[in-house]
Amino acid sequence: MNKNSSNIMALAPNTSNKRETVCIFGTGDFGRALGHKIIQAGYPLVFGSRSTQTSSLIPKDAEVLSHAEAAQKAAIIIIAIQRQHYNFLTPLAETLRGKVLVDVSNNLKINQYPESNAEYLAQLVPGAKVVKAFNTVSAWALQSGTLDASRQVFVCGDDMEAKQMVMDIVRALGLTPLDQGSLLAAQEIENYPLQLFPMWKFPILLSLGLTAFFFFYCLTRDVIYPYVYENKDFSFFIAISIPNRICPILALILLALVYLPGVLAAIIQLYRGTKYRRFPDWLDKWMLCRKQLGLVALAFASLHVLYTLVIPIRSFVRWRISSQTISQALNNETEPLNNTNAWLSDSYLALGILGFFLFVLLGITSLPSVSNNVNWREFRFVQSKLGYVTLVLCTAHTLVFGGSRFLSPSSYRWYLPNAYMLSLIVPCIVLVVKFVLIFPCLDKPLTRIRQGWERNPQYSE
Amino acid sequence: MNKNSSNIMALAPNTSNKRETVCIFGTGDFGRALGHKIIQAGYPLVFGSRSTQTSSLIPKDAEVLSHAEAAQKAAIIIIAIQRQHYNFLTPLAETLRGKVLVDVSNNLKINQYPESNAEYLAQLVPGAKVVKAFNTVSAWALQSGTLDASRQVFVCGDDMEAKQMVMDIVRALGLTPLDQGSLLAAQEIENYPLQLFPMWKFPILLSLGLTAFFFFYCLTRDVIYPYVYENKDFSFFIAISIPNRICPILALILLALVYLPGVLAAIIQLYRGTKYRRFPDWLDKWMLCRKQLGLVALAFASLHVLYTLVIPIRSFVRWRISSQTISQALNNETEPLNNTNAWLSDSYLALGILGFFLFVLLGITSLPSVSNNVNWREFRFVQSKLGYVTLVLCTAHTLVFGGSRFLSPSSYRWYLPNAYMLSLIVPCIVLVVKFVLIFPCLDKPLTRIRQGWERNPQYSE
Amino acid sequence: MNKNSSNIMALAPNTSNKRETVCIFGTGDFGRALGHKIIQAGYPLVFGSRSTQTSSLIPKDAEVLSHAEAAQKAAIIIIAIQRQHYNFLTPLAETLRGKVLVDVSNNLKINQYPESNAEYLAQLVPGAKVVKAFNTVSAWALQSGTLDASRQVFVCGDDMEAKQMVMDIVRALGLTPLDQGSLLAAQEIENYPLQLFPMWKFPILLSLGLTAFFFFYCLTRDVIYPYVYENKDFSFFIAISIPNRICPILALILLALVYLPGVLAAIIQLYRGTKYRRFPDWLDKWMLCRKQLGLVALAFASLHVLYTLVIPIRSFVRWRISSQTISQALNNETEPLNNTNAWLSDSYLALGILGFFLFVLLGITSLPSVSNNVNWREFRFVQSKLGYVTLVLCTAHTLVFGGSRFLSPSSYRWYLPNAYMLSLIVPCIVLVVKFVLIFPCLDKPLTRIRQGWERNPQYSE
Repeated sequence: MNKNSSNIMALAPNTSNKRETVCIFGTGDFGRALGHKIIQAGYPLVFGSRSTQTSSLIPKDAEVLSHAEAAQKAAIIIIAIQRQHYNFLTPLAETLRGKVLVDVSNNLKINQYPESNAEYLAQLVPGAKVVKAFNTVSAWALQSGTLDASRQVFVCGDDMEAKQMVMDIVRALGLTPLDQGSLLAAQEIENYPLQLFPMWKFPILLSLGLTAFFFFYCLTRDVIYPYVYENKDFSFFIAISIPNRICPILALILLALVYLPGVLAAIIQLYRGTKYRRFPDWLDKWMLCRKQLGLVALAFASLHVLYTLVIPIRSFVRWRISSQTISQALNNETEPLNNTNAWLSDSYLALGILGFFLFVLLGITSLPSVSNNVNWREFRFVQSKLGYVTLVLCTAHTLVFGGSRFLSPSSYRWYLPNAYMLSLIVPCIVLVVKFVLIFPCLDKPLTRIRQGWERNPQYSE
Repeated sequence: MNKNSSNIMALAPNTSNKRETVCIFGTGDFGRALGHKIIQAGYPLVFGSRSTQTSSLIPKDAEVLSHAEAAQKAAIIIIAIQRQHYNFLTPLAETLRGKVLVDVSNNLKINQYPESNAEYLAQLVPGAKVVKAFNTVSAWALQSGTLDASRQVFVCGDDMEAKQMVMDIVRALGLTPLDQGSLLAAQEIENYPLQLFPMWKFPILLSLGLTAFFFFYCLTRDVIYPYVYENKDFSFFIAISIPNRICPILALILLALVYLPGVLAAIIQLYRGTKYRRFPDWLDKWMLCRKQLGLVALAFASLHVLYTLVIPIRSFVRWRISSQTISQALNNETEPLNNTNAWLSDSYLALGILGFFLFVLLGITSLPSVSNNVNWREFRFVQSKLGYVTLVLCTAHTLVFGGSRFLSPSSYRWYLPNAYMLSLIVPCIVLVVKFVLIFPCLDKPLTRIRQGWERNPQYSE
Repeated sequence: MNKNSSNIMALAPNTSNKRETVCIFGTGDFGRALGHKIIQAGYPLVFGSRSTQTSSLIPKDAEVLSHAEAAQKAAIIIIAIQRQHYNFLTPLAETLRGKVLVDVSNNLKINQYPESNAEYLAQLVPGAKVVKAFNTVSAWALQSGTLDASRQVFVCGDDMEAKQMVMDIVRALGLTPLDQGSLLAAQEIENYPLQLFPMWKFPILLSLGLTAFFFFYCLTRDVIYPYVYENKDFSFFIAISIPNRICPILALILLALVYLPGVLAAIIQLYRGTKYRRFPDWLDKWMLCRKQLGLVALAFASLHVLYTLVIPIRSFVRWRISSQTISQALNNETEPLNNTNAWLSDSYLALGILGFFLFVLLGITSLPSVSNNVNWREFRFVQSKLGYVTLVLCTAHTLVFGGSRFLSPSSYRWYLPNAYMLSLIVPCIVLVVKFVLIFPCLDKPLTRIRQGWERNPQYSE
């Protein structure tokens, strides 16, 4: 393909084996660190600086020249200078015409300026080809060579040729360039390194709040109540027993909260009779962090599994079982097997195991490398079908765990029901509404709405 | 590199910052959803439609024109119309000359037509540059913004330039374009969203069949037999005890079935004396789904671990242990430690733990992101060497579990051996044959055959 | 963008649908296997060979010609010949001018020759465009079709156009091309398939050594000592009890060794007053394998968890508990709950659970696909902050496990302290030094040094 340009290239001498000179404007920490790496990769390097005195900090093999002189020596100029000082480039505009300018800058805050630094640079030096790159790499990581973190360098720019040249340097440095398209992507690339798990904030805050609430709830019921009424010191419940109540409760509630927005969205669409009106903002945001909610729920479920499996090793449990056995032996009692209890205990454990197993499957399919290898139909099958089965199993696990205790008055201390009862509210609502939505009289119009049909076309925006 | 075209570009005004108009043919659901997104990404948009009346459903900022008018306004035309109606494009052939046509269509069945929709489009409008893209994205996902699933958009086409333009739009929409090469790849890309875990069908059906068989086998031996002969109700075994027999059995059998085809292939190659004849079809298919077989086996092994660790919490087990202890106490017996039992119990547990540990390691290395970071030699080392060690450990775990029970007549109820004995057949065969194949008299010719040597060159196809 | 070349392309007839002829020099095993695949992908194929007799082994649809004739028929020539025989290409230099030569060769040793095979080829045939590709794929994998391993094909070359052509063939073969930049990358690409987990060697050897040491240490204390002094046979401890001592010890020591080099680096930088001098070589190497050290530690921690959870199922443990209970029942004793013991037991278990949970989180974030989706700030937060919390929790777990046994003389057998005490040395050193480094009087200069400040600028290189 593209024979003509191929022939042109065949005639041009192949000179790329000796690498082209790279210029770095700015001799600050990042400029020097990047310079070291570039020299190691075999590129000739010049620095452009206000003062042309070679400092001892600058890599030995690099020349330090004035900005104009340095720019003339290279086709690629890396601008390792803060945005505030970019205006010194304006007088150099003529020298920089046709050159590739690489913007490596970062800001201190997300969306600090109306336009990205790279776009600002492109406006200042309109004749140059601006490429955004390297801003996601830290000077420390470059210098110490321990790039344990992501080796990905996001690259964007309007000029394909310039982008290719920068991506070649990125590769030569042992990093992985990722083409992010045109310079419009620069804003997002500049915001990227400033983020600290933005999608996780809501799920984590929510779970911290719920954890605190249920901790004090269980503390009241399980430690303070027996201390007040029976003068028993169960303070050591704080280490395992109470966490092992909080974890399953949070796992169940958060898992239900993953599926609640989908149910709410269906109700809203049915009510409005169209899918062409936007959901309220809170619902949009909620839907976008469902994956994170689900993973936090999985974390609590995993802790619950560990806390539960450790039960028979606990010194308190061993003491309780052996003192029960001893008292039975001393009273010469032999209890027959209670078949109902055996059924309840085994089936609640089995439901929990199956629920947790599916939950882990859901977690594995949400790994980026797995979900990228799965098409839309498969992803929907796993996250929606398997997800609801998981929710049903986990809810059933909690219901069977309760067993006959639901109505027993002894489980109400200070009028407070057992904590697990509270955890059943949200999942039961989700499952009941979802069950109702499956009925054909609701499912059929919903499917049509989602395929683009509208009940009252005039209502749409 | 490529200096000439670089200079040409430097002279051409850099206009890519203001985005080029995109045209969409068809105002159906997918066309509108894609249109919304494209407008959001900052592209001017025109719709081409039979009726040029602006419907309320169409994004406000988009113009609706006739097909010919709309096509003239844009360099890229997205054909959001079903394949059956493509022939309306024939009269527009002159207008579409040199334009980029993006085929986004999907079929209802895999390989529905002899040629892919994109290739059919390329035949209809020979002057246009056809690019296949966007067919793996759902309208619902585009509109709701909740692209939890794969953000990958497969792109293919014969014209590099056209492909680049489409990939830029894909990136601007927040999706990840994946270049799949020339238009010949379109067939595969169109089949992709219709698949539902095609490689998993055989392993899952097989394991369902085996599960059903072993369930009724164990039900007969462990629930019906004691009910008939001892009038004991062990129906609650269905919840945990029987699953915990089925899971390890299936895990072991499926793991052995992962390594059986390799052993069969070696025998066939040794017998034929060449590697240049194709294996029978069933063996080829079997070899292709080994990874899935192994992962299903791992799932059963994980369930087995959970079911086993939960044993001491089961109410039935607690009752059995305490009633044993009580009866010993009442009879004033103190049993000394049985050293053989301690050895058997500890070593079968240890073998199981190590086997499961290696099994999980195998599972982790089969994650796409891990196996992509591993070279062929490392992959072979893990999946072949470590895999066989896992199989040996798991088989030994089952053998030691059996301990002295193999020949005890009490373990045969209704002439049925214990289920775990059945599970040992396949792994033992695989291990014995593999052991034989390691002998130099067989290993040396096999290695030579695999390096291309032939015993009777005239036999090859 | 790039309008000019776009127009040129629109005029040129679009011929890429019928694929261009590919030529393979060499009819050895790899050449034939690759040839089969290329024919399957729909490319016309010619072989170039010394003897032009069609052997029965060569794919039927391929022609076999002399080297010169074959080369004239194709634009792409795959050199499936060993490096030693490359000099036969010199007389063909004129025929090969402008052709794309694909070097697929591998060496037997890492860095066997001073220059890579591909660069050697480029020197021999200066007029051709050399591309390195396919060397990471095995002939066996190509032929059997079971490409379970990585489908990635690393491609590098100085000519963009030539690289694109080769990458299209790679894609047509169902493999994933990865552009590695210019031909300078060939050396690395040629070394890649020869490696066998190079980064894992040190962590695995270290852990094997430590395992051996602690095995004999524990054997002496726990098996030989009781045998000598109390004539008790605890040899079965070898299966579970001793591994369950070794695993947590190794997990803790290796986890501490992950954080020790960071602490040492900080001390060195504070002492030197600059970050611009290289660390000693051993420290550099140590820092580069921290991830692998951590993952080996995680493996030991996981084994520890499994060994621990299995405790209540062990026949020995069941015997011990029931004989204790029986002896208490026979002596008519009922012990009250020991609250201190309950606290110690529960809190050491809880610390272990939380430590292990965070450890698994660290492991998950080190999966390539997860760490690629995380920016530098997030990665530092997880691996540094969460990592130290993990170390603190695991150290505390071990300290509380020891409880009051530290000073008890009965825990010193043959003057040997309990093994877990030895395991506490390294983590405690790391935590104490890290704690000291957090003090502002040390933290502030360290931060400034890491931002590029120097105490004595003349000291730098």
